[in-house]
Amino acid sequence: MKVLVINAGSSSMKFTLFSMANNTVLAKGQFERLGTDKPNMIYKRLSDGLKFEGIVPVRNLEEALKRVCAKLVDPADGVMKDLGEIVAIGHRVLLGGEKITKPVKVDEGVKEIIREYIPLGPLHNPANLAGIEACEAAMPGIPNVAVFDTQFHMTMPPEAYLYAIPTEYYEKYGIRKYGFHGTSHRYVTLATAEFLGKKPEDVTLITCHLGNGCSMAAVKNGKVIDTTMGLTPLEGLMMGTRSGDLDPAVVIHLIELGHSTKEVDTILNKKSGLYGVGGINSGDMRDMINAAEGGNEQAELALKMFARRVVKYVGAYYVLLGGADALVFTGGVGEYSVPMRKRITSQLGALGLKLDDERNKECFGKPGVISTDDSKWKMIVMPTDEELMIATDTVNTLGLKK
Amino acid sequence: MKVLVINAGSSSMKFTLFSMANNTVLAKGQFERLGTDKPNMIYKRLSDGLKFEGIVPVRNLEEALKRVCAKLVDPADGVMKDLGEIVAIGHRVLLGGEKITKPVKVDEGVKEIIREYIPLGPLHNPANLAGIEACEAAMPGIPNVAVFDTQFHMTMPPEAYLYAIPTEYYEKYGIRKYGFHGTSHRYVTLATAEFLGKKPEDVTLITCHLGNGCSMAAVKNGKVIDTTMGLTPLEGLMMGTRSGDLDPAVVIHLIELGHSTKEVDTILNKKSGLYGVGGINSGDMRDMINAAEGGNEQAELALKMFARRVVKYVGAYYVLLGGADALVFTGGVGEYSVPMRKRITSQLGALGLKLDDERNKECFGKPGVISTDDSKWKMIVMPTDEELMIATDTVNTLGLKK
Repeated sequence: MKVLVINAGSSSMKFTLFSMANNTVLAKGQFERLGTDKPNMIYKRLSDGLKFEGIVPVRNLEEALKRVCAKLVDPADGVMKDLGEIVAIGHRVLLGGEKITKPVKVDEGVKEIIREYIPLGPLHNPANLAGIEACEAAMPGIPNVAVFDTQFHMTMPPEAYLYAIPTEYYEKYGIRKYGFHGTSHRYVTLATAEFLGKKPEDVTLITCHLGNGCSMAAVKNGKVIDTTMGLTPLEGLMMGTRSGDLDPAVVIHLIELGHSTKEVDTILNKKSGLYGVGGINSGDMRDMINAAEGGNEQAELALKMFARRVVKYVGAYYVLLGGADALVFTGGVGEYSVPMRKRITSQLGALGLKLDDERNKECFGKPGVISTDDSKWKMIVMPTDEELMIATDTVNTLGLKK
Repeated sequence: MKVLVINAGSSSMKFTLFSMANNTVLAKGQFERLGTDKPNMIYKRLSDGLKFEGIVPVRNLEEALKRVCAKLVDPADGVMKDLGEIVAIGHRVLLGGEKITKPVKVDEGVKEIIREYIPLGPLHNPANLAGIEACEAAMPGIPNVAVFDTQFHMTMPPEAYLYAIPTEYYEKYGIRKYGFHGTSHRYVTLATAEFLGKKPEDVTLITCHLGNGCSMAAVKNGKVIDTTMGLTPLEGLMMGTRSGDLDPAVVIHLIELGHSTKEVDTILNKKSGLYGVGGINSGDMRDMINAAEGGNEQAELALKMFARRVVKYVGAYYVLLGGADALVFTGGVGEYSVPMRKRITSQLGALGLKLDDERNKECFGKPGVISTDDSKWKMIVMPTDEELMIATDTVNTLGLKK
């Protein structure tokens, strides 16, 4: 049983083809720079490491998808004989708002909801919808399932998701905290529950998805009660290129300095975070750690700021949750950055957490406990897999049997 | 020895005349609606409860101050024979930036710094300066001391005060977290240390100034290491009419809905918070609690949101501080709102805090411990007195002996 997972962005499209019998990836890759005159395609076949990379002149996402389909059934480079072997297609969709609380089979009603939230997800929702429609055109008859980045957070209570602004902005325009990275927080919640030998509804966790984008979730008995990202992925933690939390007046001030709202949006989403503070024109955590270890004071400051934000939210969520079973690290930084995990966790002693340095070093991109045996509660590394989560959701939503 | 304290705002001026021998108030009051055609003056003499209130046609702050001075030495209503009995005047000033870390005697250099920060304190700094200059004109020869709302927070480390936006905005425009209510946080830090029988440098506290404006500070060994307000008083907690923390993208979104930056500023500072959410056209905590107790669900929600923000910051600061001696409540809400203190503190069990219901009820506007004897650390109510702090600072800064 094969499931294709599509993550369509405004200028990119990622794809992963799974064999669900054993949850393995058969082929994966992506198109980048869609809409430019030099779209780049990467295609990898996992069985033998075959890799194709090069400029492929397609005009849009629909044409890009056709190239991917052709590659998947190519006699030389492909992984199957016929597209009909794909039983379903799972799509990552950014924003489904309050109406979507679980993965859904795509029909006109679902497409309408995706359209409805375009004003709040102006870059992603149209691209996600285009990805779905491209699949409908290229592979008619194969069902599509939409898995929303926001849905796992829809269990937040109103006091968590409402902003303290006049109620009409929520009622008329849907301005509230939605939260993102939901599929990742859900995956690691389920995986951590299994790791701890518990049911998902019996675990209370603080999950930290630290990558280029960063977010945290407070998960009580398997359900989100708070998360750091908000109306958009800009709120909360400091990220690779995003500012995270700010005095809202800073936005007004930047506009009054002469920037347009579009420029401010770009400054805060693309030029801030580690990139904006670290002084090395990089938002990459590894670069920042290398620079700091080489004596770069701006880079050191950026790392301190990054860690401090996480530390503050750990404290906030620990209290909201009334204690927790584990603090979970995932995402590129969370899974691989031994030094950043050390910076963060060494500031959590007031909560009874103790890092085991050796365990921390050993957990490089693999699951494991990194706290000491006498730590009051556990710290865990749990690699995320959003594509596998989407593929699994797709199968489950359609009631398919492996 | 008499000291006059002046708090000049954009359309108001508060005054308090102290006798420093026993820290008592001789007279106090305020002008409101300055700049309109109906300026209102209130004057109270504390010794006998004499009160004057009425429209007093003054054109500006300078004229208002002259009226106050006339009243203070009025044979019938006054409290002294001659203005020369005033040994010094203390002024509340909003923003002194990084150059001001303690109260200072006003000279041209100090006035220049106040002017320099007008772009970041466009309403308050010009008014504060006008207040100083009015005193210089009306009472030549009497020294003026400036006490800044930001100065107590100037011990924050860079990782606390910097926003994760491109460094140039800090370097060129001074965009950073300054924090406000500093005089109040300082007063209650000193008062709590005394209450606990410790030196200020030996206490580690989380101070909550909850009034119409609300802020918290993490005070380690008597020094602020973090605070909730930011570049402006808009950041952090939910307040009477201010939103507090928001996804910065909400500001951009409100502008794209057609509001000017000035309108957004007004929405977030004057129409949000309890006022914006509670549905009863009031930002007053007492009104909100009455409405909620009467079954108003919006009011109940507003109270939950208000408490939750405080709870989250208590957790964040507890971890940053590595534990604390006491959680301190001050300000109108912090000192008097028994039900709001109960809502907040009943969510802090994960930190080992336990409220004593009877003690909470007893501490109505007076200092005292409100936690149980077996609470892991203390919760304290400590009434603030910013005017007395400014008067004391004024005397100390000038090296005057009581």
